[in-house]
Amino acid sequence: MTFPIHEQVQRIAEAAKQAARVLANTPTAKKDAALQAMAQALRAQRDRIRGANAADVEAAQGDGLSPALIDRLTLTDARLDEMVTSIEAVIRLPDPVGAVIKEWHQPNGLLIRKVRVPLGVVGIIYESRPNVTSDCASLCLKSGNAVVLRGGAETFRSNQAIASAIKQALAQAKLPEAAVSTIPTAERAGVDAMLELDQLIDVVIPRGGEELIRKIIERSRIPVIKHAKGVCHVFVDEAADLQMAETIAINAKCQRPATCNAMETLLVHERVAKRFLPSVIARLREAKVEIRGCETTRSMVPDVQPATEEDWFTEYLDLILSVRIVRSLDEAIDHITRYGSAHSDAIVTSDQSHAERFLREVDSACVYVNASTRFTDGYQFGLGAEIGISTDRLHARGPMALEELTTYKYVVIGSGQVRQ
Amino acid sequence: MTFPIHEQVQRIAEAAKQAARVLANTPTAKKDAALQAMAQALRAQRDRIRGANAADVEAAQGDGLSPALIDRLTLTDARLDEMVTSIEAVIRLPDPVGAVIKEWHQPNGLLIRKVRVPLGVVGIIYESRPNVTSDCASLCLKSGNAVVLRGGAETFRSNQAIASAIKQALAQAKLPEAAVSTIPTAERAGVDAMLELDQLIDVVIPRGGEELIRKIIERSRIPVIKHAKGVCHVFVDEAADLQMAETIAINAKCQRPATCNAMETLLVHERVAKRFLPSVIARLREAKVEIRGCETTRSMVPDVQPATEEDWFTEYLDLILSVRIVRSLDEAIDHITRYGSAHSDAIVTSDQSHAERFLREVDSACVYVNASTRFTDGYQFGLGAEIGISTDRLHARGPMALEELTTYKYVVIGSGQVRQ
Repeated sequence: MTFPIHEQVQRIAEAAKQAARVLANTPTAKKDAALQAMAQALRAQRDRIRGANAADVEAAQGDGLSPALIDRLTLTDARLDEMVTSIEAVIRLPDPVGAVIKEWHQPNGLLIRKVRVPLGVVGIIYESRPNVTSDCASLCLKSGNAVVLRGGAETFRSNQAIASAIKQALAQAKLPEAAVSTIPTAERAGVDAMLELDQLIDVVIPRGGEELIRKIIERSRIPVIKHAKGVCHVFVDEAADLQMAETIAINAKCQRPATCNAMETLLVHERVAKRFLPSVIARLREAKVEIRGCETTRSMVPDVQPATEEDWFTEYLDLILSVRIVRSLDEAIDHITRYGSAHSDAIVTSDQSHAERFLREVDSACVYVNASTRFTDGYQFGLGAEIGISTDRLHARGPMALEELTTYKYVVIGSGQVRQ
Repeated sequence: MTFPIHEQVQRIAEAAKQAARVLANTPTAKKDAALQAMAQALRAQRDRIRGANAADVEAAQGDGLSPALIDRLTLTDARLDEMVTSIEAVIRLPDPVGAVIKEWHQPNGLLIRKVRVPLGVVGIIYESRPNVTSDCASLCLKSGNAVVLRGGAETFRSNQAIASAIKQALAQAKLPEAAVSTIPTAERAGVDAMLELDQLIDVVIPRGGEELIRKIIERSRIPVIKHAKGVCHVFVDEAADLQMAETIAINAKCQRPATCNAMETLLVHERVAKRFLPSVIARLREAKVEIRGCETTRSMVPDVQPATEEDWFTEYLDLILSVRIVRSLDEAIDHITRYGSAHSDAIVTSDQSHAERFLREVDSACVYVNASTRFTDGYQFGLGAEIGISTDRLHARGPMALEELTTYKYVVIGSGQVRQ
C-alpha cells in the first residue's frame, strides 16, 4: 500500500525530526564513524550508483537536455572519488556542536553560556549535480542535523542510489537511517508537501535557478536561506594598478565562468578606460569572451555589442561580459547597488580612502579590494567545507559551512536565583 | 489624491530602503543625536500623544475590550516616562555596526574580516502596547536599520502620534524621516501588502498572539523571526533542594504571570512529590493561582481540577498552573519536548549529571538549572535592551537586542590575489 505523496513526505519529516533529536546528542566520534561508513559504502556501491546514473543520463538524453546539463548530472569515476574525498575531509573538520560562543556572569551570580546546537531538520532542494546529495548529507550529519533531500527529477535515480548507500552506512554506525532522507518522488508535489511542514523542518536551503527559488519563497512556511544568483562586479578605479586589474578581471571572468562568484560586469573609471580597456578586452576575447558594452566602451573598442538595461541585471554564467565606463567611485557604487545581487563585488585601487568607501558602502555578502571575486567559497575562505553561498541577510551570509548549520541556545546556571 | 493601500505601503517600504542605505553608514554620534532628539520630542509632545491615546482608549471601551487589554494600551505619565528612559538607555549602549566579529589571514595572504552590518529594513507587526513603537524605533535606529511599524488597530492613533514625534526628531537630526515609518491604516490589507515586499523589507518580526503569527507565516515572502508563545516548565528533580524549588516555582509562576517566560507547567519527580507538592500548592493558592493537575497530583492534594491534554499545551499567561508528577528525568524531558514551546525551561536539582542531561537534551532557547525562567529577558541577560524574544531557530534565539538586529559581511583585502 502506498500513501499519497503529502502523507509520505510528512512521515519522512516526522522521522527526520526524531532522528534530529538523537543526532543533537550524538558524540563526535560516533558521527565520524558514520561518515567513515558512508565513504566506504559509496566506494563499495560504486557500480550500482553508476548504473543508476547511467539510466538518468540516458533519460536526460532522450528528453533532449543540453550537453552542459547532461555533463553536470553525469557521475564519472573521478567525480565519485571526489564525493568520497569530500566526506573524508568533513571527518577531519572540527565538530561545531557544543562550542561555547560566549559566556559571562551576571551581577546576581547567574552564569550565562551561549552554546552552539544543531539547527534540527534541514531541507535541501537542489538541481542537477548528484554529488550535492552526499556533500549535504555529510555536512548535516557532522553538524548534528537531520537532512531531507529533494534533488531534481533528472537525477532522481542517482540520488536514490547514493542515499540508499548512505542509509546503509547510518544503520551500520547505529544511527537512525532517517538522519538522511530523500523525497521518494520526482513529482513537484513532493516539494510542495515539504514546504508546508514548518512544525517538522527547521530550514529550507534551495540551490538552483531563479524560478525554483522564487516558487519556494512564495510557498514556504519554513524559513528559507536562499542560494540565489551572483551578478558580481569588478570596479577598476582611477587609482588602480592596471596590470593587477587586468589579471583580476580575467581571473574573475574566465577561471570558471559558470559559477555564481564569477564576474558578470566590469566597471571602469573613465580616467583609466583608454589605457585599460583595449588591452583587457583583447585578452578576454582571446579567452573567447563575448563583450557587451556601454556607449563609451563601444566608442573606445571596436566590434562591441551594445549592453541593454537587461544585461546589467543578468547572471550570464557563461563567457559573456558586460562592460561599463563610470565617471566616479559613486557611480560605480550606485551601479552595483542598483543592478547587483549583493553576492561578491571587488574594487581594484591603490587609494586607501576609495577602498574603504567601497568596502563600507557596497552592501554585498563579500566585498573585495585587490582580489578576484572567485574567492567567495567556503574552502577558499578557510571554512573547510561549503553547503552553499547564502544570498540572504538572515542567519548566514556568503559561504555557509558547518557553523552556519548550527544555531545556539542559552544555558543558564544558577544557585536559586529568582527575579525581583 | 490617495493611493490604494498596497501602493502606499510599497512607497513607504521603498523610502525605508533608501533610508536604510543612509543609516548603514551613519556614524554613531549622529544616530545618538537623533535618539536624543526623539527623547526630547516625546517629552515635548506628551499632551498630543496622551490625547491620541485617550481617543484610542475611548474607542476600545466603546468596542467592549477587556479591562486587561485596555490597561495594556493605556499610556500613563509613568509609561511615557519609561518610553523616554528606554530611549536614553539605548543611547548608552554600544553601537554594534562595524564591529569585527572575526578576522584571519589565508595562506595566500588574503585578509578576511567578518564585520557587523545592519539587517536593512526591519518590519515589526505588533499588538496593543504603544511603547513598542518607540522602543523598536530606537533599537532599529541605533543598529542602523530602517523600520516599518505596524501596530494594532486598537492603538492606531497613539502609534501615529508617537511616530510623528519621532519623525520630527529625525528631521531635526538631519536623518531621513523614512528611517521610522508606520503603515497609515488600521486595515488588515496594510499587513498583507507589507508581507509581499521581499525585495524591500529584509525581515519581519511579529510580536503577538498565535493567530497573528500563524497568518504572517502563511503569507509572508519575507523572512520572519517569530516571537511566539512560551509554554515554560520548571522540573523539580528528585535531587532538588525543595526550599529552593519552592522559591523558584513561586517566582516563575507569580512574579509576572502574563509574560511569555512565566512558568505554565510544574513537573515534579514522584520521589519528592509528597514532600514538595502540598506546601508549594498551598503557597501558590495563597497567591490566587488556580491548580490543574494530573491524576497523581489530584490524589495527593485536595480540590485540584484535572488537567486535560490541552492544558499541557496551553500558555495561560494568567494565574493558572498545570502540575504533573513524573517518574524520571527522562519523562520530564519527554514531556517538555512534546508539550513545550522551546522557550524557557528549568530544572531544580543538586545532581550535576541530571543538570547536565537536562541542559543538553532540552532543546529550548533558554535552559536553566536552579534559577527562575523569568530571567529570559534582554535586560536580565545583560544585553541592555530587548526587541523581543525569538522562538525561532534561525538567526536569533531567545532575547533579541542590538546585535541580533545586525547581520555581517565579509570584507576581503588582497594585494592582487587571483584563484588558481
